[in-house]
Amino acid sequence: MSYSIKEIAASLGAEAFGNTDLIVSGVAEPAMAQVSDLALAMKPEFAAGLPMGRARAAMLWAGADWQELGLEAAITAPRPRFAMAGLSAMMDPGQGYAPGIHPSAVIDPTAQLGDGVSVGPLAVIGADARIGDGSVIGPHCFIGNDAVLGAGAYLREGVKIGARVTIGARFIAQPGAVVGGDGFSFVTPEESTIERVRDSLGDQGDLASQSYARIHSLGSVTIGDDVELGANSCIDRGTVRDTRIGNGVKFDNLAQIGHNVEIGNDCLICAQVGVAGSTRIGNNVVLGGQTGVSDNLFIGDHAITGGATKVLANVPAGRVMLGYPAMKMETHIEVYKGLRRLPRLFRDVAALQKAVSKSAKTD
Amino acid sequence: MSYSIKEIAASLGAEAFGNTDLIVSGVAEPAMAQVSDLALAMKPEFAAGLPMGRARAAMLWAGADWQELGLEAAITAPRPRFAMAGLSAMMDPGQGYAPGIHPSAVIDPTAQLGDGVSVGPLAVIGADARIGDGSVIGPHCFIGNDAVLGAGAYLREGVKIGARVTIGARFIAQPGAVVGGDGFSFVTPEESTIERVRDSLGDQGDLASQSYARIHSLGSVTIGDDVELGANSCIDRGTVRDTRIGNGVKFDNLAQIGHNVEIGNDCLICAQVGVAGSTRIGNNVVLGGQTGVSDNLFIGDHAITGGATKVLANVPAGRVMLGYPAMKMETHIEVYKGLRRLPRLFRDVAALQKAVSKSAKTD
Amino acid sequence: MSYSIKEIAASLGAEAFGNTDLIVSGVAEPAMAQVSDLALAMKPEFAAGLPMGRARAAMLWAGADWQELGLEAAITAPRPRFAMAGLSAMMDPGQGYAPGIHPSAVIDPTAQLGDGVSVGPLAVIGADARIGDGSVIGPHCFIGNDAVLGAGAYLREGVKIGARVTIGARFIAQPGAVVGGDGFSFVTPEESTIERVRDSLGDQGDLASQSYARIHSLGSVTIGDDVELGANSCIDRGTVRDTRIGNGVKFDNLAQIGHNVEIGNDCLICAQVGVAGSTRIGNNVVLGGQTGVSDNLFIGDHAITGGATKVLANVPAGRVMLGYPAMKMETHIEVYKGLRRLPRLFRDVAALQKAVSKSAKTD
Repeated sequence: MSYSIKEIAASLGAEAFGNTDLIVSGVAEPAMAQVSDLALAMKPEFAAGLPMGRARAAMLWAGADWQELGLEAAITAPRPRFAMAGLSAMMDPGQGYAPGIHPSAVIDPTAQLGDGVSVGPLAVIGADARIGDGSVIGPHCFIGNDAVLGAGAYLREGVKIGARVTIGARFIAQPGAVVGGDGFSFVTPEESTIERVRDSLGDQGDLASQSYARIHSLGSVTIGDDVELGANSCIDRGTVRDTRIGNGVKFDNLAQIGHNVEIGNDCLICAQVGVAGSTRIGNNVVLGGQTGVSDNLFIGDHAITGGATKVLANVPAGRVMLGYPAMKMETHIEVYKGLRRLPRLFRDVAALQKAVSKSAKTD
Repeated sequence: MSYSIKEIAASLGAEAFGNTDLIVSGVAEPAMAQVSDLALAMKPEFAAGLPMGRARAAMLWAGADWQELGLEAAITAPRPRFAMAGLSAMMDPGQGYAPGIHPSAVIDPTAQLGDGVSVGPLAVIGADARIGDGSVIGPHCFIGNDAVLGAGAYLREGVKIGARVTIGARFIAQPGAVVGGDGFSFVTPEESTIERVRDSLGDQGDLASQSYARIHSLGSVTIGDDVELGANSCIDRGTVRDTRIGNGVKFDNLAQIGHNVEIGNDCLICAQVGVAGSTRIGNNVVLGGQTGVSDNLFIGDHAITGGATKVLANVPAGRVMLGYPAMKMETHIEVYKGLRRLPRLFRDVAALQKAVSKSAKTD
Repeated sequence: MSYSIKEIAASLGAEAFGNTDLIVSGVAEPAMAQVSDLALAMKPEFAAGLPMGRARAAMLWAGADWQELGLEAAITAPRPRFAMAGLSAMMDPGQGYAPGIHPSAVIDPTAQLGDGVSVGPLAVIGADARIGDGSVIGPHCFIGNDAVLGAGAYLREGVKIGARVTIGARFIAQPGAVVGGDGFSFVTPEESTIERVRDSLGDQGDLASQSYARIHSLGSVTIGDDVELGANSCIDRGTVRDTRIGNGVKFDNLAQIGHNVEIGNDCLICAQVGVAGSTRIGNNVVLGGQTGVSDNLFIGDHAITGGATKVLANVPAGRVMLGYPAMKMETHIEVYKGLRRLPRLFRDVAALQKAVSKSAKTD
């Protein structure tokens, strides 16, 4: 992972200055940078740390005076946060999983592995599974029967992909992620109290004790291209048709996607989000950390939920939501301002009651 | 998985019509059904999709006119959702785990495996563990020393069962589920700030910095019959006695059950629910997704919590709760209606203050 | 695990009474105790169970009259809850993992294992990893390349430690815990709607559809001494520098710690807590179960959050918080009292309006 300043700039489509033949082999915050590091000082306030570190080159904001900062070389990018994507991809030492098929892996003879696939120690690949070219199957991973993984997949240690799951190209899964657990779907012989509560908004009716029968998940999971799934996150199978995830969707850790859910393209699903069964989510939606979405709802394109929003009703396209139950963000802010002033309001009303009562007496 | 219409109807205790010798080998939504599928059109609105698909037979609602719908055969069920339980069990292709003991599994010679037990590749079974007849131990599963699994268990890939855990018949565990992690129990040498805050409702007193000592979990986990545990869910050991789960309890993914918790029979614990230590939950309780329950509480039989309810106090039997902090559902709905009207209330009170003040002046 | 009463008392620094040579081999609640158990009756109300059980010895509260309770021997401790730490450590039968290196483990020849390290079946240890003396690496664990684990680590089954993670002494990890998943960091080519919403508090501006580019995590995770990590919990790598956890921090199950987070010493992070990227948490902080903390915040020393608190702004040192959005606990209690009285307040204001309007007419 050693590159010249020139090579990095070319790769990022950024401008390079000074001794662009200088070689760097890592990136660091300015104050902690070693001689061989490219310091990251993409805002003027970060540049203050440069004298404390030993970097000879830095990535700077557009228009920065690199010579004034005492550097030998510099790269500037118009949108430095975006440049970090390319730079970090170049500099990532990765997990160092060995190429090739580890002899301890248990691979069914009918499984089809593409060119250049690597399979880590103690991984299991089931019958008729198909793994696309150049994929990396990490240690302790499990790929079920008839599962399909597109080209360029990268599965960290202990990822579990159930039978008949279909995933597109360039899938990334963090450790312990699960695709294709069975959906959570149970039914009582007679109408259950939950069904009655839903109909009556709170009245359970007679309370009979019933046991649950299991509805098996006959569907599977279909995932598009360029999807990433966080550590220990779970995407369940559909009941009849597949649970469906579009292209470019990114899930953080410990997210939960229920059976039959449909998610469009280019969504961000943050950590510990839960989406209940059969809910449909549009394109370019962002669900903040710990957001919960009830079952059978619809969330429109470009909707955004703030952290821990609990969505109990449909959300129209473009809406920004916050709170429990979810409200438009502006409403939430106004309402919660009021909430904090509530104790004073009670005092004001009590005073008014006294004044009016007194005025009534004096009339 | 091919059955005649006649066989399916007999198995479900449902009525069959038309050419009941017709063979189907799958189920599908009406519009997506192939010739060999049984279409699922269990409500009149779903039947509209039949002409778009190719199904010759369908499962319909009671009283449906199957001939009018252009079908060759049909099954009708009085409670179609319940019929789905039996039908989906018949039609489930499952994970296709191979029968028998995979040679790569590491099984302690003292472990006792019942008749017809299958053990997947790279599973580990500890000393003196006992596995009931007909159980399926999936790939990468771990069963600890002295653990007991009843007959007919079905463990998906990567399930972890700790030492001395006892589980009844027909246990199902989804990928990555954990039973028997240690409880989260720590104590400071002197009274901690948390203990003081609990006593004083908010006042920490003097802030001394203390480190935590670990209280080990000497108890284990005891689970009844017909329990299902979701992907990456966790049930912790008890401190002195066992954490206890009754019969027929179903847990969705990423649920967390703390040490010493007791749960009765036939409860539904939805995804991402957390139940803190030593709380007791009755029978037929439903905890909606992302519900949180504080420690040392009691939740009565047939109680229901809506999604994301945060239970900070005991809940009586039969109560339907919602919100944070949890309130009766009716109260919650009334209160939150008020909350949204709060900004107007402030304006009304301000207007009243003005009117009263003016009236006082004119008196 | 058999000890005399005398040995236990000496180990705990507690007082022993009666036949202190009596041997016990387990602990139990009073009513369930066998002859060989030490009954735990550390509060007077628990002693009532003693006659129902068969214990001959008990651990009692300071000043208890053990002879009156019909015991042959007793131990009393000034802070019995703290004594449980020592007692439970002595009595813990543990998981019974076998010592030594299991032949099925896959250990890179360049990995360095300290004295007395045990490695369970089917564990994987990567190149140049270093494991401290006396550590126990459980079955199915994964230790990545160049990872460092201090002395006395105890890793339950299926723990995953990524490449270049550094962990201090006496680390404990429950089943399925993950350290060193990649951070969740994505960027759009142009300014994204989320960035705009953050700036404008709710206005997304024009809605362009963009795909996300991945920012790789070049940092790793650094963890201090005496840290415990719960089942299926996740700590992500940092983007440039390491995510940092201090000494003595205890995490319960299913907790999520985002990239670049810094946590001080001796914190308790309860189950299902989520801390978003780049947030800094001081020393002796307690985050109650299901607490969520937004990104880029600061939480001061000795702060405490109640269950399910959602922290959307900085929290000063020593503050006790509750609610969503988080408020001071006293404020929260007052505000929510008001919330429940809100319907009555609306009625009161309506009555006032009527009275004032009537009074205005009669003027």
